[in-house]
Amino acid sequence: MTQSYDELKPSPRVLLGPGPSDASPRVLKAMTTPMLGYLDGEFIRIMDGTVGLLRQVFGTANRLTLPVSGTGTAGMEAALCNVVEPGDAVVVGINGYFGGRIADIVQRCGGVVTAVEAPWGSAIRVEDVAAAVKSANPKLVAIIHAETSTGVLQPLDDISQVVRESGALFLTDCVTSLGGQPVDLDRRGIDIAYSGTQKCLGGPPGLAPISFSDRAVEAIHNRADKVQSFYLDMNLLEAYWSGETRTYHHTVSMSLVYALHESLRVVLEEGLDARYARHERNAKALVAGASAIGLKPIVGEGFRAPMLTTIDIPDGIDDVEIRNRLIDDFGIEIGGGLGIFKGKAWRIGLMGESSTQRNVLLVLSALEKLLADAGHKLEAGVGVRAASEVFSQA
Amino acid sequence: MTQSYDELKPSPRVLLGPGPSDASPRVLKAMTTPMLGYLDGEFIRIMDGTVGLLRQVFGTANRLTLPVSGTGTAGMEAALCNVVEPGDAVVVGINGYFGGRIADIVQRCGGVVTAVEAPWGSAIRVEDVAAAVKSANPKLVAIIHAETSTGVLQPLDDISQVVRESGALFLTDCVTSLGGQPVDLDRRGIDIAYSGTQKCLGGPPGLAPISFSDRAVEAIHNRADKVQSFYLDMNLLEAYWSGETRTYHHTVSMSLVYALHESLRVVLEEGLDARYARHERNAKALVAGASAIGLKPIVGEGFRAPMLTTIDIPDGIDDVEIRNRLIDDFGIEIGGGLGIFKGKAWRIGLMGESSTQRNVLLVLSALEKLLADAGHKLEAGVGVRAASEVFSQA
Repeated sequence: MTQSYDELKPSPRVLLGPGPSDASPRVLKAMTTPMLGYLDGEFIRIMDGTVGLLRQVFGTANRLTLPVSGTGTAGMEAALCNVVEPGDAVVVGINGYFGGRIADIVQRCGGVVTAVEAPWGSAIRVEDVAAAVKSANPKLVAIIHAETSTGVLQPLDDISQVVRESGALFLTDCVTSLGGQPVDLDRRGIDIAYSGTQKCLGGPPGLAPISFSDRAVEAIHNRADKVQSFYLDMNLLEAYWSGETRTYHHTVSMSLVYALHESLRVVLEEGLDARYARHERNAKALVAGASAIGLKPIVGEGFRAPMLTTIDIPDGIDDVEIRNRLIDDFGIEIGGGLGIFKGKAWRIGLMGESSTQRNVLLVLSALEKLLADAGHKLEAGVGVRAASEVFSQA
Repeated sequence: MTQSYDELKPSPRVLLGPGPSDASPRVLKAMTTPMLGYLDGEFIRIMDGTVGLLRQVFGTANRLTLPVSGTGTAGMEAALCNVVEPGDAVVVGINGYFGGRIADIVQRCGGVVTAVEAPWGSAIRVEDVAAAVKSANPKLVAIIHAETSTGVLQPLDDISQVVRESGALFLTDCVTSLGGQPVDLDRRGIDIAYSGTQKCLGGPPGLAPISFSDRAVEAIHNRADKVQSFYLDMNLLEAYWSGETRTYHHTVSMSLVYALHESLRVVLEEGLDARYARHERNAKALVAGASAIGLKPIVGEGFRAPMLTTIDIPDGIDDVEIRNRLIDDFGIEIGGGLGIFKGKAWRIGLMGESSTQRNVLLVLSALEKLLADAGHKLEAGVGVRAASEVFSQA
């Protein structure tokens, strides 16, 4: 048996991977708030307040909006398993790892997947969605807003229109985008969306904000059979989170709700538009600096998710060695590639609290040093200079 | 839309309900530890250390031991949905609310339930389990160790023997018992067990420690089809938590893992035997004091779970009014009845950090005052005196 009685003393990190990002100190402090009972009137007011803040960030008036007691993947599963019944046709956009995960979960729910594919690093094309919707006549169309494996930000407005016209429900995965780019559920006509707390919301992982339109709720209420998951059954969660009498379902994590509440306060105090602009500015500076030191972004301009930049690892550069030295010498975490991008891409996240001018300059300086050590001929400071130019223009 | 920009300032509480219990200040502080990446070598060492501590508290050498990223109910679902395949026969002991929940989840997994029932407040009888096992020839037998709805502590040794002889897998729900009473998986031959962090472990809710014997793991590996839940698929969780190469599955909540690690340190520093004895002593004093003020325990001696005492609400006493006054006047939460015990039972938890001599005397004093206010003729201090006698004998 492993024994470990020592207090935890992890080394300080600057988290510039695909999430978790650095949590706001205010959020960490909020977690020291003592427990409350799950039916305590004071806790129910905190739940209601948290849901109210969440609606603002989601851009929705959806009544059924709440944080699921699990991580982003639990949100994905809750979004799908409540709506998809055995035999249901589901169109899934797959242009990266997480689109594949959606398809996997749909199949575990007994749904029949029609995949709309695009190469990793590209966006899904609206005409391909239109063709699939026409042939499959789906109950649900699922699209990822920001693909965490590729750094593609998917244009949603045209696809939304196609889906709405077909009468299908429109689901978007906002795990990586929420709080860093507008998701605007109601304006876009998105029926189902979910996210995680540890990316652009700047909190710890552990909760999955989720929202269902009234049409989606109706689909859940009209199911022929029970939802296959009890834990994620929105009928039961609805009764606890928004029912007239709050009916016990499970003991939600007060600490994580406190943390989410505080992280949403931080988000809204900054202001959504200012926050989106900050994510865009820092990403633009990162891309300029990276290009200057010979690191090419994988995603074409206009489709880059500003919270997650993917970089083509140059020939002759050892992926793992560079990432290990970033951790060991600089305390900086960036992400490696996932799936077919393993060993080929770096994923540099600038999410929430981690999206700062300081971190852009820091990671560029560190990468420049490590590339120079690996024999790349670089004019000293060229990356930082290119990034700084973007900041001065802003 | 509800707006809430205010900082959270909940009133102080003494949590003597069915969970959450008061979290240790050390545990709350541990949650302020900054995030680490989910594949950071330092985080993986923390995961390994946490699992090592967890094995000690579970009393097992089971390799597949880890905290599921959800609450106790997620643990219940993970325990069942990985093992139960469509058509599988499952014997479920039902003598309270949570036995019924197990049966519900088994059915959502396509399993066929044979219920072994006992009245609420009584234990399941071994001869009834033996008869059900004989007739149903189940793959799995599921029994609740401490029924959180009734306060019954189920004797497990005889049932375990019956189940082992049948060749079925033996599952026990240890949500309320773990850390407050010995669960001793290996000694008892329990194949599958799960718990929550917010009861006798003294942490915040949000994780569900779980453990599978090698036989149970084999059953999972030999499934005909994929587990219906991706999020709770132990094949994938196993690869992340204990695989040679830690394969990404979901972003676990660092903060909750830090909290669990610290709460397990607190548990093991006290020592398991000392901790069990403390829970027993305080429950004994509570029962003595409650009886002295006319509050009868529902569960017979010898079957009382020391972390949760259920009380028969006396005739003429308004359940909700008393509980509201406990909260409003004293800041004390006790639990109301669940299911058929609604309005009929109080559930007084003395779990983890909440199980103290101080809290016993406090809740008895408060209840005595409120009963006197409601017209019960009581000699002042009689409850506290009876409890104090138990403490002096200890």
